Amino acid sequence: MPMHTQIPVPEAWLNLAALLPSPLPIARFSDGQTVSFDGLAKIYSEECARIELLDGPYGADAWIPIPEEVAREYAKYRPTPVHRARGLEKAIGYAGAIYCKREDVSPTGSHKPNTAIPQAYYARKQGLAELITDTGAGQWGCALGWSCHNLGVRCTVFMTRNSYSAKPYRRYLMQLAGATAIASPSPFTKCGRALFEQDPGHPGSLGIGMSEAMEMVAARPDARLALGCMSYYAALHQTVIGIELAGQLQEHRVEPDLVIGCVGGGTNFTGFISPFAAARFGHGPWRGRIPRMLAVESDRIPVLTQGEYRYEFADAFGLTPQVKMYTLGREFLPEKMHAGGLRYHGKSPLLSYLFHHGVVEAAAVSSQEAFNAGRAFFESEGILAAPESCHAIAQVIREARHFQQAGEAATIAFCLSGTGYLDLQGYADTFQLEGVEDAMSVEAGRS
Amino acid sequence: MPMHTQIPVPEAWLNLAALLPSPLPIARFSDGQTVSFDGLAKIYSEECARIELLDGPYGADAWIPIPEEVAREYAKYRPTPVHRARGLEKAIGYAGAIYCKREDVSPTGSHKPNTAIPQAYYARKQGLAELITDTGAGQWGCALGWSCHNLGVRCTVFMTRNSYSAKPYRRYLMQLAGATAIASPSPFTKCGRALFEQDPGHPGSLGIGMSEAMEMVAARPDARLALGCMSYYAALHQTVIGIELAGQLQEHRVEPDLVIGCVGGGTNFTGFISPFAAARFGHGPWRGRIPRMLAVESDRIPVLTQGEYRYEFADAFGLTPQVKMYTLGREFLPEKMHAGGLRYHGKSPLLSYLFHHGVVEAAAVSSQEAFNAGRAFFESEGILAAPESCHAIAQVIREARHFQQAGEAATIAFCLSGTGYLDLQGYADTFQLEGVEDAMSVEAGRS
Repeated sequence: MPMHTQIPVPEAWLNLAALLPSPLPIARFSDGQTVSFDGLAKIYSEECARIELLDGPYGADAWIPIPEEVAREYAKYRPTPVHRARGLEKAIGYAGAIYCKREDVSPTGSHKPNTAIPQAYYARKQGLAELITDTGAGQWGCALGWSCHNLGVRCTVFMTRNSYSAKPYRRYLMQLAGATAIASPSPFTKCGRALFEQDPGHPGSLGIGMSEAMEMVAARPDARLALGCMSYYAALHQTVIGIELAGQLQEHRVEPDLVIGCVGGGTNFTGFISPFAAARFGHGPWRGRIPRMLAVESDRIPVLTQGEYRYEFADAFGLTPQVKMYTLGREFLPEKMHAGGLRYHGKSPLLSYLFHHGVVEAAAVSSQEAFNAGRAFFESEGILAAPESCHAIAQVIREARHFQQAGEAATIAFCLSGTGYLDLQGYADTFQLEGVEDAMSVEAGRS
Repeated sequence: MPMHTQIPVPEAWLNLAALLPSPLPIARFSDGQTVSFDGLAKIYSEECARIELLDGPYGADAWIPIPEEVAREYAKYRPTPVHRARGLEKAIGYAGAIYCKREDVSPTGSHKPNTAIPQAYYARKQGLAELITDTGAGQWGCALGWSCHNLGVRCTVFMTRNSYSAKPYRRYLMQLAGATAIASPSPFTKCGRALFEQDPGHPGSLGIGMSEAMEMVAARPDARLALGCMSYYAALHQTVIGIELAGQLQEHRVEPDLVIGCVGGGTNFTGFISPFAAARFGHGPWRGRIPRMLAVESDRIPVLTQGEYRYEFADAFGLTPQVKMYTLGREFLPEKMHAGGLRYHGKSPLLSYLFHHGVVEAAAVSSQEAFNAGRAFFESEGILAAPESCHAIAQVIREARHFQQAGEAATIAFCLSGTGYLDLQGYADTFQLEGVEDAMSVEAGRS
């Protein structure tokens, strides 16, 4: 059931980097040189470069005021609802409480506008004409396209050719929002052309898309790169999720024992847990007991559960600066999967830091278990979750069983990071819905 | 922006039939005989037959208590949010206020569970094993499948073959919810077989699907027909939309000058306007000024704006009883269109009555104008509306312009009856998104 809320839209982001007990490692070049502001401002908008380098207030202040125009755009859809999943509780026989924060009802169906909006705003304020990015499943491309349209900036998206062709709905949504969607590898960059000319049907990868975006940014002086995750600026912006959640839980006097989110790069998760992590360092808006914080990754990309903590490139070709993170190595090529948003070789520096320092725990879930959980959630609540978010739901169900067995009626909250309506092909493939037609028709015709 | 709400889920439906100044005409057979309870209870569940015949409390009481178990299912998703569309107001330069009631965030993405849930509940209570229905675009089939699953009743859906093949996403959602989806015309009924054997790829129609469902119901003693619109029971159940809306508007001291909804059969619209219509007859929960009420149909199915008010069959083959309604005649074959939910030859008896007696007004909108409005709404609000709902948005924009020209800053509220995420093909076809790839890629590669 949806819970009422009277809390306002947050007025500031929660700057975890300024609260950590030791400095958050920042980006560097492969020779070990720290990235300079001038260098990074050629890649990102100036304000995003400042955030990334923890410059000025970003290195010092617990709260970063949200610019007025960004707050106005946030107010179009925030606060997002908190939902008590009584249907799921009943379906799994759980005596405790399960809450979810519904980022799936945000514009374009995911949490991504939380950072797309400020990125588009900073670009326009600086007088840039265009933001360029890459996208896999398409959540990020849709959100950036929509935000750029509303803030008057052009948007170009390199979309993995495989998704571009096989999952046209998210591409349509992106185009509808005014973005230029290009299948990657494309013939328009050196990186892409080499692959495209060998095979015009090359399926592409996130790493290739990011390399193409980087190359195009270098060639266009009025364009910059926009990242939907991995960067610290994306993590900072996503703290609106957690700040709101804390307010909403306090409004209803709810204190979670455990908070859970899925992790691709990790920015929806770190945003979601931000008030609880801040409370661990003695700061921020959360005054209740501090819950366990649990990040859920795909077992096919076991970055936290099996990776190393070291410096690595963000892209596949080594064109970006390096960041310190848990990683499987930039050469790691995950197999094709429906939860495209989890298909990345590393985790964001902030998440990696929090995991390394024991603030957050990690678990890995299989695709089948995730979809089973998504189906159970849909059946019991009528809400269809994105395959990425299904990983969080699977872990919620696991943990509820543990609590149940221990005789504890604990309170669990999780982040529903995106809608599954644009991912029905994944559910259909997993549960072989296409193949049941004949069998069902025979059953239906029995009378 | 979403508005906070503290109103509870309604505890009773608003029974407009008991408030009308003259009796609402009920169903009859083609020979003019009134349908008996025994006759109708072979088609519908007993309780739905009672509602349809305005039996007992349904003919007398302004309020019908909602059964506890139905209320529990409603509480999974209700109250649905009211959203102030400040983005759209700004985009069209409107000085007044535009509100929308978001039924698109309900389970399976539309207002249809409001009646699917009580229908499944009544069927189970009566000991029926199965509900059988037809669906066009699929909103209704998804909602009924989901509701039946949760209340322990089997669900079989005849889905227009054209949609079954061309728009598999909604079929997947239906199957995921546990419904048996059958492409219609099918080889499993006499009506269907004749057409199927001539052409196994026959595209089907809503009328054919309803005839197949009727025939299967007749052959299965433990099964009944379920209708998602046209029936009075569906109209009664949908009043939860309007009751909630009235409470939410009063909570914020908002008095609309005009309320707008799209009409296929008309039940989402009559539910949406129910408190205002009741106020016209001196009853009900609404104590503010009474707004104009405007029903918007597709200009390709101009039932209210060009049809006749008379008795007609609900289905194409004349297997159902007749109801008094505005209709273009059951032979009317509307061309294929994306707003499948509006593609029907008549309007519900309640809507027809209200229109005939001047309580509600009507307007017709073209598909192109509707999609243009849907695109403007998506661009400005980030919410993608179903093609049906886009007709309402188009009329909202028209009316806002009229008010603006007259120098009035009026308040408009409309019903967002369903999500458009499963209808992206309609947007893509309308705006030729598939065809823009080459042009865009050339533009993208200009540097």
